[in-house]
Amino acid sequence: MKSIGIFFKPDLEKIASSFAKKLEEKNVNIKFFSSNVLEINYKTDVTLVIGGDGTVLKAAKFVLSPIIGFKGGRLGFLSSYTIEEFEKFLKDFETNQFREDKRQFLEVKEINALCLNDVVALKEPSQKMVDIEITFRDGNFVFHADGLVISTPTGSTAYSLSLGGPILLPNVDAYVLTPIAPQFLASRSVILPDYEEISVLTSFETHLIVDGVDYGKFKKFSVKKSEKNITILRPFDYDFSKSIKEKLGYGKNYFK
Amino acid sequence: MKSIGIFFKPDLEKIASSFAKKLEEKNVNIKFFSSNVLEINYKTDVTLVIGGDGTVLKAAKFVLSPIIGFKGGRLGFLSSYTIEEFEKFLKDFETNQFREDKRQFLEVKEINALCLNDVVALKEPSQKMVDIEITFRDGNFVFHADGLVISTPTGSTAYSLSLGGPILLPNVDAYVLTPIAPQFLASRSVILPDYEEISVLTSFETHLIVDGVDYGKFKKFSVKKSEKNITILRPFDYDFSKSIKEKLGYGKNYFK
Repeated sequence: MKSIGIFFKPDLEKIASSFAKKLEEKNVNIKFFSSNVLEINYKTDVTLVIGGDGTVLKAAKFVLSPIIGFKGGRLGFLSSYTIEEFEKFLKDFETNQFREDKRQFLEVKEINALCLNDVVALKEPSQKMVDIEITFRDGNFVFHADGLVISTPTGSTAYSLSLGGPILLPNVDAYVLTPIAPQFLASRSVILPDYEEISVLTSFETHLIVDGVDYGKFKKFSVKKSEKNITILRPFDYDFSKSIKEKLGYGKNYFK
Repeated sequence: MKSIGIFFKPDLEKIASSFAKKLEEKNVNIKFFSSNVLEINYKTDVTLVIGGDGTVLKAAKFVLSPIIGFKGGRLGFLSSYTIEEFEKFLKDFETNQFREDKRQFLEVKEINALCLNDVVALKEPSQKMVDIEITFRDGNFVFHADGLVISTPTGSTAYSLSLGGPILLPNVDAYVLTPIAPQFLASRSVILPDYEEISVLTSFETHLIVDGVDYGKFKKFSVKKSEKNITILRPFDYDFSKSIKEKLGYGKNYFK
């Protein structure tokens, strides 16, 4: 891997520069160095992303190469190293010791948006509950709720989890539907296979929010598995259960 | 489909007999007629099962043919017709109008048991909480709890649901792990892809219960996807979401 792109959160430019300098000393060709997604050049072997999960989410939609995320402090779900672990990364990089962690995108075709975490339909605070009808090839459900989250396995540890949803390992080929404040106690998540295309119809216009970006108000949209996925390169000893245990305390051995 | 087996819950023998009679009038060859799984003859085109989900669970492990379940009163998740709908079934049977609903088995190799719903590790009522360590290729978790349920998508509407777990559509290729009364608030379900083999190690012996049958006490066992699956034949208009709506009221339109 000799050609690299660097994408960074604007306030981390200094750290990004020091990474670039160290890589150039190792004769790595830095093809782009930017905090603006529009300046991302596609033709690199790998893209380093410096920032939290939000920065990785942003970059992932624009790059075609695998991604390696670096975060200050504790690891995010989508970051592979802390910023402090850059030297460890350099060693792994020189020996090409990585493990591939593939994540699937969804897409909302009406707004031409890719989704790595979740697609959310959400009413205005001042509005009453909305009827949300979900139709897929093999059935349909109606929720009377404040909104609905359609999440990837990647997004299952984000908003869906806050709403009481389950944790999906990244390589489960499925979506999670989790209603927001549903009436009639219908608060459980439903898991659908990811080959289903989901049509959403709401009784009045709701905000359509994809990976945290509000695309305005819609009454109707559809969600399906995208042709795009992204590979995150991980240290060889990475496993997803470790990040669940470290970040959420879930399934951790408290007695060791 | 001209060769049929009939398996029935002992107290439904009279109904089973009347079904057999009507089928013989249509020149159907009844290859076995029993309430004893050991008398199930493998070589039929289809097996009619008269009884609830428990009876279907029992029969499913012994037959190689597709199954059609008949239940008194309301439909079960695994039944395709109510007993009252036998005439409707006969029509579908004559025109061979069925829809296939395939369900995956798990297996617990230490006890040579097949599982269609769930594998449960459960402590004695008088015992303190147990540490349950789950190991799979891509990671591990430890739960401090009364027990743990490892469920198929089929079992996701049974014990796992009672414990707060999500609903999985039958065709999701995954397991659900749902802890029973976990400490440390780690009560969410975890969904794993079904190609993972799961090893379970408990800090003291717990009851190993597969589809409701107690196999005695174990400290160690493993669960993996079986080579066996079972096809349930359904009326053509069946969809799983309908049974969720009818039986649980989940995702139902209350305003129509």
